[in-house]
Amino acid sequence: MGGDYAPASVVQGAYLAAEELGDKVALVLVGNRDKITDCIQTSRLESPPFEIEHAPEEVLMEEKPTDALRRKKSSSIAVASRLHKCGDANAILSAGNTGAVVASALLTLGRLEGVLRPAIATSFPTEKGVTTVLDMGANPECKPANLLQFGVMGSIYESYIHSKVNPRIGLLSIGQEATKGNDLILAAHRLFSESDLNFVGNIEGQDILKGAVDVVVTDGFVGNVILKFMESLLDFLNSLAWRHVKRDIFAKVGLFLLKSAFRSIKRTLDYTEYGGAPLLGVNGVCIICHGSSSPKAISSGIKVAYRMVIDEVNDHIKKRLISDGYMFAAVAPGSLKNSTGKQK
Amino acid sequence: MGGDYAPASVVQGAYLAAEELGDKVALVLVGNRDKITDCIQTSRLESPPFEIEHAPEEVLMEEKPTDALRRKKSSSIAVASRLHKCGDANAILSAGNTGAVVASALLTLGRLEGVLRPAIATSFPTEKGVTTVLDMGANPECKPANLLQFGVMGSIYESYIHSKVNPRIGLLSIGQEATKGNDLILAAHRLFSESDLNFVGNIEGQDILKGAVDVVVTDGFVGNVILKFMESLLDFLNSLAWRHVKRDIFAKVGLFLLKSAFRSIKRTLDYTEYGGAPLLGVNGVCIICHGSSSPKAISSGIKVAYRMVIDEVNDHIKKRLISDGYMFAAVAPGSLKNSTGKQK
Repeated sequence: MGGDYAPASVVQGAYLAAEELGDKVALVLVGNRDKITDCIQTSRLESPPFEIEHAPEEVLMEEKPTDALRRKKSSSIAVASRLHKCGDANAILSAGNTGAVVASALLTLGRLEGVLRPAIATSFPTEKGVTTVLDMGANPECKPANLLQFGVMGSIYESYIHSKVNPRIGLLSIGQEATKGNDLILAAHRLFSESDLNFVGNIEGQDILKGAVDVVVTDGFVGNVILKFMESLLDFLNSLAWRHVKRDIFAKVGLFLLKSAFRSIKRTLDYTEYGGAPLLGVNGVCIICHGSSSPKAISSGIKVAYRMVIDEVNDHIKKRLISDGYMFAAVAPGSLKNSTGKQK
Repeated sequence: MGGDYAPASVVQGAYLAAEELGDKVALVLVGNRDKITDCIQTSRLESPPFEIEHAPEEVLMEEKPTDALRRKKSSSIAVASRLHKCGDANAILSAGNTGAVVASALLTLGRLEGVLRPAIATSFPTEKGVTTVLDMGANPECKPANLLQFGVMGSIYESYIHSKVNPRIGLLSIGQEATKGNDLILAAHRLFSESDLNFVGNIEGQDILKGAVDVVVTDGFVGNVILKFMESLLDFLNSLAWRHVKRDIFAKVGLFLLKSAFRSIKRTLDYTEYGGAPLLGVNGVCIICHGSSSPKAISSGIKVAYRMVIDEVNDHIKKRLISDGYMFAAVAPGSLKNSTGKQK
């Protein structure tokens, strides 16, 4: 059980989720039993609505994922993945080391049938509701076929989790015309255009927060850079605001009066509040939460995991990929070098 | 003469620059003579400290750059580029259609000796001053050698224009380790490590606004997506703020008291205030200003153009590329496909 505020945030998040979901879910907290028990006692929370599965080791936030997983077979991430793999859990959620969660899910659960590369999907608040962007960092280097599958997975996720009818899909580029972008985007644009997805074309950086589409498809390099840039921009604006109002008493009073509104804005912008980021395409349900997740964010993540299980999102992805021809002849990553066409 | 507020903004910007630079510069305004004269009369500005070069046609903001340049030989962008080419001007600046400015500069002025690909450099305000990011959109698809040259050009630009001693260069990636990133970044990291540049390693999305380095190197796809995302984030925050304070009278008063501070924050964040974006690597000085540039932004751009000319930034770039071995054996773009090594 990880995260910057572990185990408190996860424990409280589990209480919140149990309160809302009742006996629809059975929660298991995987981590150091003593620490979890301490946390329950210190917080004077009532008798816990979850089981505890002891995992004595932990993967630290700054540890190298593959090394850590190799050495720490009893880390909470590894134990939770195994619980899911053997069927004792239907889904896993972690606010720990993202790289380790992804690696563990990939190694332990494997890929869903038909999926070339799993992708991290993150839902952003926008002017028109919620937009899901994928991939946010699992695949720094992508092929056009990977992006097309991200579109399929994102579309199904939006349909079931955010109840969107025929979600609009946009390909992140640097111009709306089909001729704008890098080689990857030009080739992916052709694949999307030939598909039966609700593809609206290329979108640009400014269109994400405008909510121009329901699903934004991009490679894990661009997605990750944007995500981290956005997080820092909020902090930067905050420090800039305080610097600017320092010598202006009216502005100072203004900033004070706005404090609670600012908190609420920050919450609106906090994508983790929207249920964490599922690793779509693994043979299971794996929700990645931000290291600094609040109990509410953890609880939202648990609810998304629950929805993904009962709505059988993975089955829908699998069926769509297989029956609608989004499978590619050569599934082994190495042999996909020249695959750009959809195999119908 | 272009831009959303043309010609007023450019005319007023020219007055501002002339006031500050005096007879150190001789300005020529290229555009529709009648419109410029009208603008001078309406604004009741004193007799203009610039010449006017009549250019009857204009490339519209939404026009396709290459088409427009082919059809409109007398557009202000084309005429200004020719003035520069034939030596009647030492630098050009435009707030018009960015694509057309880049295309016109490339076609008319050509590349500086030794430069594989010119790049747009944009200076961002950061927590520690100013950081220059390149490329911001001229090259959606890059080779490792291009990125290395962006590092050289950005470093020289920072030295002369922002007076930085031995500027620190960072490669934008999704992890600080040399092993993190996509194929392009992994290869570029090796080139940078072997170079004599002050390369500090990979940086991440959150490091740009922290001012972790003086020069951020990235390809034109990622750079452009970030720039447009940042612009939209400010508008998004603004609309979000008003939505959040609607039902909160204290917050409303707060927002009102903060109005002037907000304007000042927006100015701080407005990268165009930092002198527009030079297209580094063309055989000349070409400054691209934002379409919505204020007179002050135009004036800053003129001052940067002036500094680039008197400090002979292009000569320094040329010398560095040639003498320090940043030239690559195969300079023709097509033959660079497999060039990843620095030719010493």
